Amino acid sequence: MTPRVVGILSPGDMGSAIGRVLHEHGLEVVTCLEGRSELTRLRAREAGFREVASYDDLVREADLLLSVLVPSEALAVAERVAEAVRRTGASLVYADCNAIAPRTVAEIAGVLTEAGCTFVDAGIIGGPPGAGGGTRFYCSGPDCSGFESLREHGLDVRVVGPTIGQASGLKMVYAASTKGTTALWTELLVAARLLGLEEALAAELEGSAVARQVMRGIPSMPRRARRWIGEMEEIAKTFEDLGLTPLMLQGAADLYRLVGETPLADQTSREPDPSLVAVLGGLAERVGK
Amino acid sequence: MTPRVVGILSPGDMGSAIGRVLHEHGLEVVTCLEGRSELTRLRAREAGFREVASYDDLVREADLLLSVLVPSEALAVAERVAEAVRRTGASLVYADCNAIAPRTVAEIAGVLTEAGCTFVDAGIIGGPPGAGGGTRFYCSGPDCSGFESLREHGLDVRVVGPTIGQASGLKMVYAASTKGTTALWTELLVAARLLGLEEALAAELEGSAVARQVMRGIPSMPRRARRWIGEMEEIAKTFEDLGLTPLMLQGAADLYRLVGETPLADQTSREPDPSLVAVLGGLAERVGK
Repeated sequence: MTPRVVGILSPGDMGSAIGRVLHEHGLEVVTCLEGRSELTRLRAREAGFREVASYDDLVREADLLLSVLVPSEALAVAERVAEAVRRTGASLVYADCNAIAPRTVAEIAGVLTEAGCTFVDAGIIGGPPGAGGGTRFYCSGPDCSGFESLREHGLDVRVVGPTIGQASGLKMVYAASTKGTTALWTELLVAARLLGLEEALAAELEGSAVARQVMRGIPSMPRRARRWIGEMEEIAKTFEDLGLTPLMLQGAADLYRLVGETPLADQTSREPDPSLVAVLGGLAERVGK
Repeated sequence: MTPRVVGILSPGDMGSAIGRVLHEHGLEVVTCLEGRSELTRLRAREAGFREVASYDDLVREADLLLSVLVPSEALAVAERVAEAVRRTGASLVYADCNAIAPRTVAEIAGVLTEAGCTFVDAGIIGGPPGAGGGTRFYCSGPDCSGFESLREHGLDVRVVGPTIGQASGLKMVYAASTKGTTALWTELLVAARLLGLEEALAAELEGSAVARQVMRGIPSMPRRARRWIGEMEEIAKTFEDLGLTPLMLQGAADLYRLVGETPLADQTSREPDPSLVAVLGGLAERVGK
Protein backbone atom coordinates (compact mmCIF):
# COMPACT_ATOMS: atom_id res chain seq x y z
CA MET A 1 0.00 0.00 0.00
CA THR A 2 1.32 3.42 -0.99
CA PRO A 3 -0.54 6.24 0.73
CA ARG A 4 -1.52 9.28 -1.23
CA VAL A 5 -3.33 11.12 1.55
CA VAL A 6 -1.88 11.14 5.06
CA GLY A 7 -3.86 12.26 8.09
CA ILE A 8 -2.05 13.68 11.12
CA LEU A 9 -3.46 14.01 14.62
CA SER A 10 -2.53 16.49 15.78
CA PRO A 11 -0.48 19.28 14.22
CA GLY A 12 1.53 20.34 17.29
CA ASP A 13 5.28 21.08 17.05
CA MET A 14 6.13 17.54 15.92
CA GLY A 15 2.96 16.76 13.96
CA SER A 16 3.05 19.96 11.92
CA ALA A 17 6.76 19.50 11.11
CA ILE A 18 6.06 15.97 9.86
CA GLY A 19 3.11 17.20 7.81
CA ARG A 20 5.22 19.93 6.26
CA VAL A 21 7.89 17.45 5.15
CA LEU A 22 5.32 15.04 3.70
CA HIS A 23 3.49 17.87 1.92
CA GLU A 24 6.76 19.19 0.48
CA HIS A 25 7.47 15.67 -0.77
CA GLY A 26 4.25 15.30 -2.73
CA LEU A 27 1.71 13.90 -0.30
CA GLU A 28 -1.62 15.42 0.55
CA VAL A 29 -1.84 16.03 4.30
CA VAL A 30 -5.15 16.33 6.13
CA THR A 31 -6.16 16.87 9.73
CA CYS A 32 -9.19 17.47 11.89
CA LEU A 33 -8.96 20.45 14.21
CA GLU A 34 -12.19 20.11 16.21
CA GLY A 35 -11.72 21.96 19.48
CA ARG A 36 -8.15 23.03 18.71
CA SER A 37 -6.79 26.56 19.18
CA GLU A 38 -6.44 29.26 16.51
CA LEU A 39 -2.63 28.91 16.82
CA THR A 40 -2.84 25.22 15.95
CA ARG A 41 -5.13 26.00 13.02
CA LEU A 42 -2.70 28.66 11.74
CA ARG A 43 0.31 26.39 12.16
CA ALA A 44 -1.47 23.59 10.29
CA ARG A 45 -2.35 25.85 7.38
CA GLU A 46 1.20 27.20 7.20
CA ALA A 47 2.51 23.65 7.06
CA GLY A 48 0.27 22.81 4.10
CA PHE A 49 -2.41 20.80 5.92
CA ARG A 50 -5.93 20.69 4.55
CA GLU A 51 -8.55 20.71 7.28
CA VAL A 52 -11.51 18.33 7.28
CA ALA A 53 -14.61 18.80 9.38
CA SER A 54 -14.82 15.54 11.31
CA TYR A 55 -13.06 12.31 12.24
CA ASP A 56 -15.40 10.55 9.81
CA ASP A 57 -14.15 12.70 6.95
CA LEU A 58 -10.57 12.23 8.15
CA VAL A 59 -10.65 8.42 8.05
CA ARG A 60 -12.54 8.45 4.74
CA GLU A 61 -9.97 10.71 3.09
CA ALA A 62 -6.72 9.45 4.59
CA ASP A 63 -5.02 6.21 3.55
CA LEU A 64 -2.59 6.44 6.46
CA LEU A 65 -3.21 8.18 9.78
CA LEU A 66 -0.34 9.21 12.05
CA SER A 67 -1.09 9.68 15.73
CA VAL A 68 1.37 12.25 17.10
CA LEU A 69 0.19 13.35 20.53
CA VAL A 70 1.13 13.66 24.16
CA PRO A 71 1.10 10.15 25.66
CA SER A 72 -2.00 10.73 27.78
CA GLU A 73 -4.15 11.42 24.68
CA ALA A 74 -3.03 8.43 22.62
CA LEU A 75 -5.69 5.93 23.71
CA ALA A 76 -8.64 8.34 23.64
CA VAL A 77 -7.83 9.50 20.10
CA ALA A 78 -7.37 5.89 18.95
CA GLU A 79 -10.83 5.06 20.31
CA ARG A 80 -12.41 8.02 18.49
CA VAL A 81 -10.70 6.98 15.25
CA ALA A 82 -11.84 3.38 15.69
CA GLU A 83 -15.44 4.58 16.07
CA ALA A 84 -15.14 6.69 12.93
CA VAL A 85 -13.71 3.73 11.01
CA ARG A 86 -16.60 1.53 12.16
CA ARG A 87 -19.16 4.17 11.22
CA THR A 88 -17.70 4.84 7.78
CA GLY A 89 -16.27 1.44 6.86
CA ALA A 90 -13.09 3.26 5.79
CA SER A 91 -9.90 1.35 5.02
CA LEU A 92 -7.03 2.80 7.06
CA VAL A 93 -3.47 2.20 8.16
CA TYR A 94 -3.05 3.64 11.67
CA ALA A 95 0.47 4.37 12.89
CA ASP A 96 0.80 5.26 16.56
CA CYS A 97 3.93 7.46 16.78
CA ASN A 98 3.57 8.37 20.45
CA ALA A 99 6.07 7.92 23.27
CA ILE A 100 4.14 5.19 25.05
CA ALA A 101 4.90 1.88 26.74
CA PRO A 102 4.63 -1.37 24.76
CA ARG A 103 1.69 -2.31 27.01
CA THR A 104 -0.16 0.90 26.06
CA VAL A 105 0.61 0.29 22.38
CA ALA A 106 -0.79 -3.24 22.62
CA GLU A 107 -4.02 -1.85 24.03
CA ILE A 108 -4.29 0.76 21.27
CA ALA A 109 -3.43 -1.84 18.61
CA GLY A 110 -6.29 -3.97 19.90
CA VAL A 111 -8.80 -1.12 19.61
CA LEU A 112 -7.80 -0.34 16.01
CA THR A 113 -7.35 -3.83 14.61
CA GLU A 114 -10.77 -4.77 15.98
CA ALA A 115 -12.18 -1.84 14.00
CA GLY A 116 -10.48 -3.24 10.88
CA CYS A 117 -7.41 -1.00 10.66
CA THR A 118 -3.88 -2.09 9.82
CA PHE A 119 -1.85 -1.07 12.86
CA VAL A 120 1.77 0.07 12.85
CA ASP A 121 3.79 0.71 16.02
CA ALA A 122 6.08 3.70 15.51
CA GLY A 123 8.53 5.66 17.64
CA ILE A 124 10.11 9.00 16.77
CA ILE A 125 13.65 9.70 17.95
CA GLY A 126 14.98 13.23 17.56
CA GLY A 127 13.32 16.64 17.28
CA PRO A 128 10.76 17.74 14.69
CA PRO A 129 12.02 16.82 11.18
CA GLY A 130 12.99 19.46 8.69
CA ALA A 131 15.53 22.19 9.39
CA GLY A 132 17.78 20.39 11.90
CA GLY A 133 17.22 16.98 10.33
CA GLY A 134 18.31 13.67 11.75
CA THR A 135 14.88 12.57 13.01
CA ARG A 136 14.45 8.78 12.90
CA PHE A 137 11.03 7.17 12.45
CA TYR A 138 11.22 3.62 13.79
CA CYS A 139 8.39 1.21 13.09
CA SER A 140 7.48 -2.37 13.94
CA GLY A 141 4.58 -4.73 13.33
CA PRO A 142 3.44 -7.49 11.00
CA ASP A 143 2.75 -5.06 8.14
CA CYS A 144 4.71 -1.80 8.15
CA SER A 145 4.62 -1.26 4.39
CA GLY A 146 2.22 1.70 4.49
CA PHE A 147 4.38 3.52 7.00
CA GLU A 148 7.62 2.47 5.30
CA SER A 149 6.55 4.17 2.10
CA LEU A 150 6.96 7.55 3.86
CA ARG A 151 10.66 6.96 3.24
CA GLU A 152 9.97 8.11 -0.33
CA HIS A 153 8.44 11.31 1.03
CA GLY A 154 11.28 12.78 3.06
CA LEU A 155 11.25 10.80 6.31
CA ASP A 156 14.06 8.58 7.65
CA VAL A 157 11.99 5.43 8.29
CA ARG A 158 13.62 2.35 9.85
CA VAL A 159 12.03 -1.02 10.59
CA VAL A 160 12.88 -2.47 14.02
CA GLY A 161 11.10 -5.81 13.68
CA PRO A 162 7.83 -7.65 13.09
CA THR A 163 6.29 -7.19 16.53
CA ILE A 164 3.99 -4.47 17.86
CA GLY A 165 5.80 -2.92 20.85
CA GLN A 166 9.35 -3.06 19.51
CA ALA A 167 9.39 0.45 18.04
CA SER A 168 7.78 1.90 21.16
CA GLY A 169 10.14 -0.10 23.36
CA LEU A 170 13.11 1.38 21.52
CA LYS A 171 11.68 4.87 21.98
CA MET A 172 11.22 4.14 25.71
CA VAL A 173 14.76 2.91 26.42
CA TYR A 174 16.31 5.64 24.30
CA ALA A 175 14.24 8.37 25.96
CA ALA A 176 15.23 6.94 29.36
CA SER A 177 18.87 7.40 28.36
CA THR A 178 18.45 11.03 27.32
CA LYS A 179 15.51 12.54 29.25
CA GLY A 180 16.05 10.29 32.29
CA THR A 181 19.67 11.40 32.51
CA THR A 182 18.67 15.04 32.04
CA ALA A 183 16.15 14.74 34.89
CA LEU A 184 18.70 13.15 37.24
CA TRP A 185 21.35 15.76 36.53
CA THR A 186 18.93 18.67 36.74
CA GLU A 187 17.91 17.45 40.17
CA LEU A 188 21.45 16.98 41.48
CA LEU A 189 22.56 20.36 40.09
CA VAL A 190 19.60 22.08 41.77
CA ALA A 191 20.49 20.24 45.01
CA ALA A 192 24.11 21.44 44.71
CA ARG A 193 22.84 24.99 44.27
CA LEU A 194 20.53 24.76 47.27
CA LEU A 195 23.44 23.43 49.36
CA GLY A 196 25.80 26.18 48.17
CA LEU A 197 28.03 23.59 46.50
CA GLU A 198 27.85 24.68 42.87
CA GLU A 199 31.49 25.68 42.58
CA ALA A 200 32.83 22.67 44.44
CA LEU A 201 30.75 20.34 42.27
CA ALA A 202 31.76 22.14 39.09
CA ALA A 203 35.41 21.62 40.03
CA GLU A 204 34.78 17.91 40.62
CA LEU A 205 32.97 17.53 37.30
CA GLU A 206 35.55 19.40 35.25
CA GLY A 207 36.75 17.27 32.38
CA SER A 208 33.77 14.89 32.53
CA ALA A 209 32.35 14.26 29.05
CA VAL A 210 29.07 13.14 30.59
CA ALA A 211 28.74 16.35 32.60
CA ARG A 212 29.49 18.51 29.59
CA GLN A 213 27.02 16.77 27.29
CA VAL A 214 24.20 16.46 29.83
CA MET A 215 24.51 20.05 31.05
CA ARG A 216 24.40 21.33 27.48
CA GLY A 217 20.97 19.72 27.11
CA ILE A 218 19.35 21.29 30.19
CA PRO A 219 18.49 24.79 28.81
CA SER A 220 16.16 23.39 26.12
CA MET A 221 14.40 21.09 28.62
CA PRO A 222 12.00 23.44 30.48
CA ARG A 223 9.89 24.31 27.43
CA ARG A 224 9.41 20.59 26.78
CA ALA A 225 9.16 19.45 30.42
CA ARG A 226 5.34 19.34 30.63
CA ARG A 227 5.19 17.04 27.61
CA TRP A 228 7.87 14.80 29.11
CA ILE A 229 5.94 14.04 32.33
CA GLY A 230 3.66 11.52 30.63
CA GLU A 231 6.57 10.11 28.65
CA MET A 232 8.54 9.39 31.84
CA GLU A 233 5.46 7.69 33.28
CA GLU A 234 5.21 5.49 30.18
CA ILE A 235 8.87 4.51 30.55
CA ALA A 236 8.24 3.72 34.24
CA LYS A 237 5.38 1.47 33.13
CA THR A 238 7.61 -0.18 30.52
CA PHE A 239 10.26 -0.98 33.13
CA GLU A 240 7.71 -2.18 35.68
CA ASP A 241 6.13 -4.52 33.12
CA LEU A 242 9.58 -6.07 32.64
CA GLY A 243 10.06 -6.61 36.39
CA LEU A 244 12.40 -3.63 36.83
CA THR A 245 11.92 -0.75 39.28
CA PRO A 246 9.67 2.07 37.99
CA LEU A 247 10.93 4.52 40.62
CA MET A 248 13.76 6.20 38.73
CA LEU A 249 11.43 7.19 35.91
CA GLN A 250 8.59 8.12 38.24
CA GLY A 251 11.13 10.42 39.88
CA ALA A 252 12.01 11.86 36.47
CA ALA A 253 8.28 12.55 35.97
CA ASP A 254 8.25 14.31 39.38
CA LEU A 255 11.19 16.46 38.34
CA TYR A 256 9.54 17.48 35.06
CA ARG A 257 6.30 18.17 36.94
CA LEU A 258 8.29 20.52 39.18
CA VAL A 259 9.80 22.25 36.13
CA GLY A 260 6.31 22.48 34.61
CA GLU A 261 5.13 24.44 37.67
CA THR A 262 7.64 27.23 37.02
CA PRO A 263 7.47 30.08 34.47
CA LEU A 264 10.49 28.44 32.78
CA ALA A 265 8.09 25.98 31.16
CA ASP A 266 6.09 28.77 29.50
CA GLN A 267 8.97 29.49 27.11
CA THR A 268 8.39 28.55 23.46
CA SER A 269 10.81 27.19 20.89
CA ARG A 270 10.63 30.53 19.07
CA GLU A 271 12.38 32.32 21.97
CA PRO A 272 16.07 31.76 22.85
CA ASP A 273 16.57 29.15 25.58
CA PRO A 274 17.50 30.39 29.08
CA SER A 275 21.03 29.82 30.38
CA LEU A 276 21.83 26.77 32.53
CA VAL A 277 22.30 29.07 35.52
CA ALA A 278 18.86 30.63 34.93
CA VAL A 279 17.21 27.19 34.77
CA LEU A 280 18.86 25.95 37.96
CA GLY A 281 18.16 29.27 39.69
CA GLY A 282 14.49 29.19 38.70
CA LEU A 283 14.10 25.65 40.00
CA ALA A 284 16.01 26.32 43.23
CA GLU A 285 13.73 29.29 43.85
CA ARG A 286 10.60 27.18 43.28
CA VAL A 287 11.86 24.44 45.65
CA GLY A 288 13.10 26.87 48.29
CA LYS A 289 9.57 28.24 48.79
CA MET B 1 46.23 19.87 66.37
CA THR B 2 48.56 17.52 64.49
CA PRO B 3 47.61 13.89 64.95
CA ARG B 4 50.31 11.34 65.59
CA VAL B 5 48.06 8.32 65.98
CA VAL B 6 45.08 7.86 63.65
CA GLY B 7 42.31 5.36 64.34
CA ILE B 8 40.30 3.89 61.46
CA LEU B 9 36.93 2.17 61.72
CA SER B 10 36.87 -0.05 59.86
CA PRO B 11 39.63 -1.42 57.63
CA GLY B 12 37.52 -2.52 54.65
CA ASP B 13 38.65 -1.82 51.05
CA MET B 14 38.62 1.95 51.54
CA GLY B 15 39.63 2.09 55.21
CA SER B 16 42.62 -0.21 54.82
CA ALA B 17 43.86 1.69 51.76
CA ILE B 18 43.67 4.97 53.70
CA GLY B 19 45.48 3.39 56.66
CA ARG B 20 48.22 2.09 54.39
CA VAL B 21 48.86 5.54 52.90
CA LEU B 22 48.93 7.20 56.34
CA HIS B 23 51.21 4.49 57.74
CA GLU B 24 53.57 4.82 54.78
CA HIS B 25 53.63 8.56 55.42
CA GLY B 26 54.75 8.30 59.03
CA LEU B 27 51.58 8.03 61.08
CA GLU B 28 50.74 5.28 63.50
CA VAL B 29 47.45 3.68 62.52
CA VAL B 30 45.29 1.77 64.98
CA THR B 31 41.96 -0.01 64.76
CA CYS B 32 39.66 -2.18 66.79
CA LEU B 33 38.56 -5.42 65.15
CA GLU B 34 36.02 -6.74 67.66
CA GLY B 35 33.73 -9.12 65.83
CA ARG B 36 35.42 -8.64 62.46
CA SER B 37 36.43 -11.47 60.13
CA GLU B 38 39.88 -13.06 59.81
CA LEU B 39 40.15 -11.54 56.31
CA THR B 40 39.65 -8.04 57.71
CA ARG B 41 42.23 -8.75 60.44
CA LEU B 42 44.74 -9.97 57.83
CA ARG B 43 44.12 -7.02 55.55
CA ALA B 44 44.55 -4.58 58.45
CA ARG B 45 47.89 -6.14 59.47
CA GLU B 46 49.13 -6.10 55.87
CA ALA B 47 48.27 -2.40 55.65
CA GLY B 48 50.33 -1.64 58.77
CA PHE B 49 47.48 -1.23 61.28
CA ARG B 50 48.08 -2.00 64.96
CA GLU B 51 45.11 -3.65 66.61
CA VAL B 52 43.79 -2.54 69.97
CA ALA B 53 41.44 -4.58 72.14
CA SER B 54 38.51 -2.23 72.68
CA TYR B 55 36.86 1.03 71.67
CA ASP B 56 38.09 2.46 75.00
CA ASP B 57 41.68 1.72 74.03
CA LEU B 58 41.05 3.08 70.54
CA VAL B 59 39.83 6.49 71.68
CA ARG B 60 42.57 6.69 74.33
CA GLU B 61 45.32 5.99 71.79
CA ALA B 62 44.06 7.84 68.72
CA ASP B 63 44.22 11.63 68.32
CA LEU B 64 42.04 11.47 65.22
CA LEU B 65 39.46 8.81 64.41
CA LEU B 66 38.22 8.25 60.84
CA SER B 67 34.84 6.60 60.40
CA VAL B 68 34.89 4.77 57.05
CA LEU B 69 31.90 2.45 56.89
CA VAL B 70 28.81 1.53 54.95
CA PRO B 71 26.22 4.28 55.51
CA SER B 72 23.92 2.12 57.63
CA GLU B 73 26.64 1.59 60.28
CA ALA B 74 27.72 5.21 60.62
CA LEU B 75 25.39 6.26 63.45
CA ALA B 76 25.76 3.09 65.54
CA VAL B 77 29.56 3.26 65.44
CA ALA B 78 29.46 6.98 66.32
CA GLU B 79 27.33 6.16 69.36
CA ARG B 80 29.74 3.45 70.53
CA VAL B 81 32.68 5.83 70.12
CA ALA B 82 30.82 8.57 72.03
CA GLU B 83 30.26 6.14 74.92
CA ALA B 84 33.94 5.19 74.96
CA VAL B 85 34.95 8.86 74.96
CA ARG B 86 32.62 9.53 77.91
CA ARG B 87 33.94 6.53 79.82
CA THR B 88 37.61 7.35 79.23
CA GLY B 89 37.53 11.16 79.08
CA ALA B 90 39.72 10.90 75.98
CA SER B 91 40.34 13.91 73.75
CA LEU B 92 39.48 13.06 70.16
CA VAL B 93 38.87 14.53 66.72
CA TYR B 94 36.21 12.44 64.97
CA ALA B 95 35.93 12.66 61.19
CA ASP B 96 32.92 11.01 59.62
CA CYS B 97 34.00 10.06 56.08
CA ASN B 98 30.87 8.13 55.14
CA ALA B 99 28.55 8.63 52.19
CA ILE B 100 25.65 9.96 54.22
CA ALA B 101 23.09 12.73 53.96
CA PRO B 102 23.75 16.12 55.62
CA ARG B 103 20.84 15.34 57.96
CA THR B 104 22.49 12.06 59.07
CA VAL B 105 25.81 13.86 59.54
CA ALA B 106 24.13 16.49 61.72
CA GLU B 107 22.74 13.74 63.93
CA ILE B 108 26.13 12.06 64.23
CA ALA B 109 27.84 15.39 64.87
CA GLY B 110 25.42 15.97 67.75
CA VAL B 111 26.23 12.62 69.35
CA LEU B 112 29.98 13.22 69.24
CA THR B 113 30.18 16.90 70.16
CA GLU B 114 27.96 16.21 73.17
CA ALA B 115 30.53 13.62 74.24
CA GLY B 116 33.25 16.28 73.92
CA CYS B 117 34.78 15.38 70.54
CA THR B 118 35.79 17.81 67.80
CA PHE B 119 33.70 16.79 64.81
CA VAL B 120 34.72 17.00 61.15
CA ASP B 121 32.37 16.27 58.24
CA ALA B 122 34.27 14.51 55.48
CA GLY B 123 33.41 13.02 52.10
CA ILE B 124 35.62 10.79 49.97
CA ILE B 125 35.40 11.07 46.19
CA GLY B 126 37.18 8.46 44.10
CA GLY B 127 38.32 4.89 44.78
CA PRO B 128 40.65 3.70 47.56
CA PRO B 129 43.78 5.90 47.61
CA GLY B 130 47.18 4.52 46.67
CA ALA B 131 47.87 2.76 43.39
CA GLY B 132 45.33 4.49 41.15
CA GLY B 133 45.57 7.80 43.00
CA GLY B 134 43.30 10.76 42.53
CA THR B 135 41.16 10.23 45.63
CA ARG B 136 39.89 13.51 47.08
CA PHE B 137 39.15 13.92 50.79
CA TYR B 138 36.73 16.82 51.22
CA CYS B 139 36.05 18.19 54.68
CA SER B 140 33.88 20.88 56.25
CA GLY B 141 33.12 22.16 59.75
CA PRO B 142 34.14 24.87 62.19
CA ASP B 143 37.49 23.20 62.97
CA CYS B 144 38.93 20.95 60.27
CA SER B 145 42.59 21.43 61.24
CA GLY B 146 43.07 17.91 62.63
CA PHE B 147 41.76 16.36 59.45
CA GLU B 148 43.53 18.86 57.22
CA SER B 149 46.89 17.82 58.62
CA LEU B 150 46.49 14.47 56.83
CA ARG B 151 47.51 16.44 53.75
CA GLU B 152 51.08 16.11 55.05
CA HIS B 153 50.66 12.36 55.21
CA GLY B 154 49.79 11.47 51.65
CA LEU B 155 46.09 12.37 51.30
CA ASP B 156 44.60 14.98 48.96
CA VAL B 157 42.57 16.94 51.55
CA ARG B 158 40.36 19.84 50.45
CA VAL B 159 38.25 22.13 52.63
CA VAL B 160 34.73 22.82 51.30
CA GLY B 161 33.58 25.31 53.94
CA PRO B 162 32.92 26.00 57.61
CA THR B 163 29.64 24.12 57.95
CA ILE B 164 28.94 20.53 58.98
CA GLY B 165 27.04 18.95 56.06
CA GLN B 166 28.83 20.65 53.18
CA ALA B 167 31.40 17.90 52.61
CA SER B 168 28.74 15.21 52.83
CA GLY B 169 26.45 17.22 50.59
CA LEU B 170 29.16 17.40 47.96
CA LYS B 171 29.67 13.65 48.21
CA MET B 172 25.92 13.14 47.78
CA VAL B 173 25.46 15.28 44.67
CA TYR B 174 28.63 13.93 43.08
CA ALA B 175 27.65 10.31 43.80
CA ALA B 176 24.21 11.02 42.33
CA SER B 177 25.93 12.12 39.12
CA THR B 178 28.05 8.99 38.83
CA LYS B 179 26.29 6.11 40.60
CA GLY B 180 22.82 7.49 39.87
CA THR B 181 23.62 7.69 36.16
CA THR B 182 25.12 4.19 36.22
CA ALA B 183 21.94 2.83 37.84
CA LEU B 184 19.68 4.50 35.27
CA TRP B 185 21.70 3.25 32.33
CA THR B 186 22.08 -0.25 33.73
CA GLU B 187 18.31 -0.43 34.05
CA LEU B 188 17.57 0.85 30.55
CA LEU B 189 20.20 -1.43 29.00
CA VAL B 190 18.72 -4.43 30.80
CA ALA B 191 15.27 -3.35 29.58
CA ALA B 192 16.60 -3.12 26.02
CA ARG B 193 17.99 -6.62 26.36
CA LEU B 194 14.73 -8.01 27.71
CA LEU B 195 12.87 -6.37 24.80
CA GLY B 196 15.33 -7.72 22.22
CA LEU B 197 16.38 -4.19 21.31
CA GLU B 198 20.07 -4.25 22.18
CA GLU B 199 21.32 -3.82 18.63
CA ALA B 200 18.81 -1.16 17.68
CA LEU B 201 19.63 0.81 20.83
CA ALA B 202 23.37 0.40 20.31
CA ALA B 203 22.96 1.86 16.81
CA GLU B 204 21.04 4.83 18.22
CA LEU B 205 23.66 5.43 20.92
CA GLU B 206 26.62 5.20 18.61
CA GLY B 207 28.77 8.29 18.87
CA SER B 208 27.28 9.37 22.22
CA ALA B 209 30.03 10.39 24.66
CA VAL B 210 27.64 9.84 27.56
CA ALA B 211 26.83 6.31 26.45
CA ARG B 212 30.49 5.44 26.00
CA GLN B 213 31.58 6.76 29.39
CA VAL B 214 28.63 5.39 31.37
CA MET B 215 28.79 1.93 29.78
CA ARG B 216 32.49 1.71 30.53
CA GLY B 217 31.68 2.08 34.23
CA ILE B 218 29.09 -0.70 34.46
CA PRO B 219 31.41 -3.78 34.69
CA SER B 220 33.00 -2.59 37.96
CA MET B 221 29.61 -1.79 39.51
CA PRO B 222 28.25 -5.22 40.57
CA ARG B 223 30.99 -5.94 43.13
CA ARG B 224 30.23 -2.57 44.76
CA ALA B 225 26.44 -2.60 44.27
CA ARG B 226 25.55 -3.87 47.77
CA ARG B 227 27.51 -1.03 49.37
CA TRP B 228 25.84 1.49 47.09
CA ILE B 229 22.26 0.65 48.17
CA GLY B 230 22.59 2.60 51.42
CA GLU B 231 24.43 5.40 49.67
CA MET B 232 21.59 5.85 47.16
CA GLU B 233 19.13 5.95 50.06
CA GLU B 234 21.19 8.67 51.74
CA ILE B 235 21.16 10.72 48.52
CA ALA B 236 17.38 10.22 48.29
CA LYS B 237 17.12 11.56 51.85
CA THR B 238 19.36 14.52 50.95
CA PHE B 239 17.15 15.44 48.00
CA GLU B 240 13.93 14.96 49.97
CA ASP B 241 15.22 17.22 52.76
CA LEU B 242 15.73 19.92 50.14
CA GLY B 243 12.19 19.55 48.80
CA LEU B 244 13.20 17.56 45.72
CA THR B 245 11.84 14.16 44.70
CA PRO B 246 13.59 11.20 46.39
CA LEU B 247 12.23 8.71 43.84
CA MET B 248 15.05 8.67 41.30
CA LEU B 249 17.58 7.75 43.95
CA GLN B 250 15.25 5.30 45.68
CA GLY B 251 14.97 3.66 42.27
CA ALA B 252 18.77 3.59 42.01
CA ALA B 253 18.81 1.82 45.41
CA ASP B 254 16.27 -0.69 44.03
CA LEU B 255 18.48 -1.33 41.03
CA TYR B 256 21.56 -1.94 43.18
CA ARG B 257 19.48 -4.18 45.46
CA LEU B 258 18.59 -6.22 42.38
CA VAL B 259 22.25 -6.44 41.36
CA GLY B 260 23.11 -7.43 44.93
CA GLU B 261 20.75 -10.41 44.66
CA THR B 262 22.76 -11.88 41.77
CA PRO B 263 26.05 -13.81 41.87
CA LEU B 264 27.59 -10.87 39.98
CA ALA B 265 27.80 -9.04 43.31
CA ASP B 266 29.95 -11.79 44.87
CA GLN B 267 32.90 -10.81 42.68
CA THR B 268 35.85 -9.19 44.48
CA SER B 269 38.18 -6.44 43.31
CA ARG B 270 40.98 -9.04 43.08
CA GLU B 271 39.21 -10.81 40.18
CA PRO B 272 38.87 -9.29 36.69
CA ASP B 273 35.54 -7.50 36.18
CA PRO B 274 32.91 -9.23 34.03
CA SER B 275 32.12 -7.86 30.56
CA LEU B 276 29.24 -5.41 30.05
CA VAL B 277 27.37 -8.14 28.17
CA ALA B 278 27.83 -10.55 31.10
CA VAL B 279 26.52 -7.98 33.58
CA LEU B 280 23.44 -7.16 31.50
CA GLY B 281 22.86 -10.85 30.79
CA GLY B 282 23.08 -11.76 34.48
CA LEU B 283 20.61 -9.07 35.42
CA ALA B 284 18.20 -9.89 32.58
CA GLU B 285 18.23 -13.50 33.73
CA ARG B 286 17.48 -12.50 37.33
CA VAL B 287 14.60 -10.26 36.25
CA GLY B 288 13.20 -12.71 33.74
CA LYS B 289 12.58 -15.29 36.48
